Amino acid sequence: MKKKFQVVGIGNAMVDILSHVEDGFLAANGVEKGIMQLIDMARAVDLYGHMGPAQEISGGSAANTIAGIAALGGRTAYVGKVRDDQLGMIFAHDLRAQGATYQTPLAAKDHEHETGRCMVLVTPDGERSLNTYLGVSEFLGPDDIDPAMMAQAEWLYLEGYRFDGPDSKAAFAKAIDAARAAGGRVSLTLSDPFCVERHRDDFREMIRNHIDLLFCNEHEMAAMYPGETLDRSMRDAAAEIDIVVCTASEKGAYVLNGGGLEHAHAVPTQIVDATGAGDLFASGFLFGLVHGYDTLTCARMGNVAAAEVISHIGARPEADLMELFHEHGLV
Amino acid sequence: MKKKFQVVGIGNAMVDILSHVEDGFLAANGVEKGIMQLIDMARAVDLYGHMGPAQEISGGSAANTIAGIAALGGRTAYVGKVRDDQLGMIFAHDLRAQGATYQTPLAAKDHEHETGRCMVLVTPDGERSLNTYLGVSEFLGPDDIDPAMMAQAEWLYLEGYRFDGPDSKAAFAKAIDAARAAGGRVSLTLSDPFCVERHRDDFREMIRNHIDLLFCNEHEMAAMYPGETLDRSMRDAAAEIDIVVCTASEKGAYVLNGGGLEHAHAVPTQIVDATGAGDLFASGFLFGLVHGYDTLTCARMGNVAAAEVISHIGARPEADLMELFHEHGLV
Repeated sequence: MKKKFQVVGIGNAMVDILSHVEDGFLAANGVEKGIMQLIDMARAVDLYGHMGPAQEISGGSAANTIAGIAALGGRTAYVGKVRDDQLGMIFAHDLRAQGATYQTPLAAKDHEHETGRCMVLVTPDGERSLNTYLGVSEFLGPDDIDPAMMAQAEWLYLEGYRFDGPDSKAAFAKAIDAARAAGGRVSLTLSDPFCVERHRDDFREMIRNHIDLLFCNEHEMAAMYPGETLDRSMRDAAAEIDIVVCTASEKGAYVLNGGGLEHAHAVPTQIVDATGAGDLFASGFLFGLVHGYDTLTCARMGNVAAAEVISHIGARPEADLMELFHEHGLV
Repeated sequence: MKKKFQVVGIGNAMVDILSHVEDGFLAANGVEKGIMQLIDMARAVDLYGHMGPAQEISGGSAANTIAGIAALGGRTAYVGKVRDDQLGMIFAHDLRAQGATYQTPLAAKDHEHETGRCMVLVTPDGERSLNTYLGVSEFLGPDDIDPAMMAQAEWLYLEGYRFDGPDSKAAFAKAIDAARAAGGRVSLTLSDPFCVERHRDDFREMIRNHIDLLFCNEHEMAAMYPGETLDRSMRDAAAEIDIVVCTASEKGAYVLNGGGLEHAHAVPTQIVDATGAGDLFASGFLFGLVHGYDTLTCARMGNVAAAEVISHIGARPEADLMELFHEHGLV
């Protein structure tokens, strides 16, 4: 029987606040380039006060992935927490308007935290440095997980970032149990090398016991499976996981899926804003997977979707991804 | 003695919610193409519910103009009302981050209206159709006008749109009196042909008695000064106003300033989103004027600034306008 959802994503719900800065701004404001830093509200206010004019676009890593699959016509749902405030309404609108189901209970108006936001500082080289105030997204807990929805998922897509929160591991466990009991499969993205450092043991336990498909980039792979070469790390990972996918920026993406190492070349593009590259890669890959494509084609779809999202500001797709798949002979 | 502010703008403070739509969406949702329609909260919620994913960028006509002058290094201030909510904070941030002074008292958190917003629907031809929920911006009143700030303005820049509100005329009158008493001059933009229809008599009274410089486009000119030709209308306007400036899209801009009709050709560009064209034209023109340039050069500066803002999404400048003025040999 066809399940209602092809992919259900769980992650940190947030709105991105994007601004162009020079590299000197990062140094002057203590921002480490190219990674995600968690910040508290006071730091968020301070950093925002120093930033230039910005624009707001819905973000959140897994939410971007789900939006990308929805934009391709995939059947998707998303779980992540926003508050009953203006940024929360924007986040919910953008996801639903893209065609995804989004029903996570809102945090109340009087919650001490607001909807999460990520200050995305884009340097002239297109690299993005993320400064995340998690807000209420951190408080996603088991009560927010609807087992019936999880049971309707062909694939879960779990965001590693979401491990940063008091009840999140219990929420993930509940989601995984409900999905697997109904025959669903589970994918995880490691999100960020520092996220791996923070949660290595928990990630390892989850990967060994529950994960069918792992997404990561080279840095996250090296943090999770230290090895002399990427090939070595990937084989170590593949000993524990059915499908291992590692993106490598301009070198494209590598897949291990039982056979030899597969490689999909990156799609050349002008990098305007790298935000969302990994997220949209996962959109393309998962879209291919749930439609029965081989994993090399899935990786190519991922590369096309990633190339689209880095060619403009913001981490949600703007062009017609399916048309791009056609142009690249993938569908 | 040098005044603290070269230009002080007064208008509707709001955040734009920008989305790409097909022309069919406008027809299906009762949106009239190319103009600004005022909508109430219920209609705003309904229309937003039908719109696709969007992005949020600070807007407001006069605020865009002030942001443009500030981006050029001009000394500016802005007066317009937002609430103490997330969109209000975004609006205030973006204006101050651009270098403008912005001190208008916030409407309280418990105000029955929220910060104003404008749903900007951009069709494939780059035309924008505006759907404005004024929110608290409508409640700008005389108490929000600081006479000391007005006295420090070389030029006031009044947004015609702001006439749509219970206390706004009194606010404008208070601002005009304080500015003129201190030797300041006053400019007005007619904003929109339907805005002219709503307020023709009040506009006429204000223009005859208090306005030194009028900004409008062809449609607004025809509504305010009906005549067989644009030339005729401009001469009728010039009988009442020192400087009359009329923009005409791809035909550029026309100026009457005591002598013959001056014409500045439009700067060719790819139109991505026409939002802010008139606003940024006024930025360039006023920047030139307060720096002593002749009115034809001012109009050319206006055309360069307008061309920049319509080449991308959003009504605030992204490129370095001063560098563009250099490239065009204007400074």
